[in-house]
Amino acid sequence: MPNAGNNDESDRSAVILLSGGLDSATVLAMARREGYACHALSIDYGQRHRGELSCAADVARALGAVDHRIIGVDLRAIGGSALTADIDVPHHGSVAEIGSAIPITYVPARNLVFLSLALARAESLGARHLFMGVNAVDYSGYPDCRPEFIRAFEATANLATRAGVEGRPFTIHTPIIAMTKAEIIRAGVSLGVDYGLTTSCYDPAADGAACSACDACLLRRQGFVEAGVKDPTRYGTTSREFGR
Amino acid sequence: MPNAGNNDESDRSAVILLSGGLDSATVLAMARREGYACHALSIDYGQRHRGELSCAADVARALGAVDHRIIGVDLRAIGGSALTADIDVPHHGSVAEIGSAIPITYVPARNLVFLSLALARAESLGARHLFMGVNAVDYSGYPDCRPEFIRAFEATANLATRAGVEGRPFTIHTPIIAMTKAEIIRAGVSLGVDYGLTTSCYDPAADGAACSACDACLLRRQGFVEAGVKDPTRYGTTSREFGR
Repeated sequence: MPNAGNNDESDRSAVILLSGGLDSATVLAMARREGYACHALSIDYGQRHRGELSCAADVARALGAVDHRIIGVDLRAIGGSALTADIDVPHHGSVAEIGSAIPITYVPARNLVFLSLALARAESLGARHLFMGVNAVDYSGYPDCRPEFIRAFEATANLATRAGVEGRPFTIHTPIIAMTKAEIIRAGVSLGVDYGLTTSCYDPAADGAACSACDACLLRRQGFVEAGVKDPTRYGTTSREFGR
Repeated sequence: MPNAGNNDESDRSAVILLSGGLDSATVLAMARREGYACHALSIDYGQRHRGELSCAADVARALGAVDHRIIGVDLRAIGGSALTADIDVPHHGSVAEIGSAIPITYVPARNLVFLSLALARAESLGARHLFMGVNAVDYSGYPDCRPEFIRAFEATANLATRAGVEGRPFTIHTPIIAMTKAEIIRAGVSLGVDYGLTTSCYDPAADGAACSACDACLLRRQGFVEAGVKDPTRYGTTSREFGR
């Protein structure tokens, strides 16, 4: 419980960026365990895998968020990523094939945009804590998943806002930034996260089934195997299961 | 001309945040004079004074921008400001009455959100220069108009992006940050800016006429008087002209 006995609501309120995926669901459960009143925030950025927004709503409800808002921002107008533009999402046969270069699924400055919106929501609420499920292990190719970016953002946030300059600084919490997918899954299971409510696939079928071969599916599947936890994900039965 | 003789397009391309107001129009003219190929970007953030978006399109065309995009982001879902929520915009009789506290027209983290979107657009374009018309003189009550915020954002941008981490850093240009409104107007007139195309009013009438009594109108009017330049603004003929 953060600052137990303190009546300042802003010390107990947090904004949680919730994507509908496995990582951010775990982060929400962690923030709840620490006693935060959690305001879940999802971003509708024109992603092709929009089913994640309804997953986010289900996760927020299941894990006891105070509320859940969806903010629309049209990153399609920016272009340049397979997640928002009409570019094929790459598929691979195994995690080993993914490679370490920045992938085409990278959305320019996405986490910066998301954190900025979360900060705006937090300042409007009077909340001083932001939680985000960034991960520097699986997403080592994404510059905006690294701890040095998070620290720089926090410093910027405290110069950008009324609360920051008035001596009520924001803290950006990234509790899973250095955890492997298996560690994240084990932590979430111990906190009662129902991963069957979450989705990770970048390229799901029309019925919502995961493709099993995009980077996100491969990392997720391997995580469940390594964690020794039964994978609740519903995978499609198309040829994609065998790689394409 | 930036790096004349250099064939690297990214050294000659810039993203300009264009609001439709006087300040950002001047900044676009300045960037054009310096030889940048200017990609204008406006943000449709649910502002009540939406006429500024069509003004931005006119300004972009008149000043020779390469293109002009509008990105939608629903800051109304965040709440907390007179510019996006159903809160009365304050009116004053003179500039002296405006006061120095952070005003209700402050939109939480707005410039951080705008710069993040401009950065995303720049990275997608391969541009390395961002221009923004923030001003620390007239808007001293807004934390996100101060030079220390801009420098912190620049550092964050270069940690958040592929270009930044790959040694092609971004530069955030804020050429009018320390200028008075009169100085901005004189600079713009010398560069051929038609301020009749711009709008500043936070609370325009249905026909687009400026209210003449919101903070933005008062600062603009006084700027033209001090610059000794004829004010092309069309003000309404309601009682607001006499303060309310």
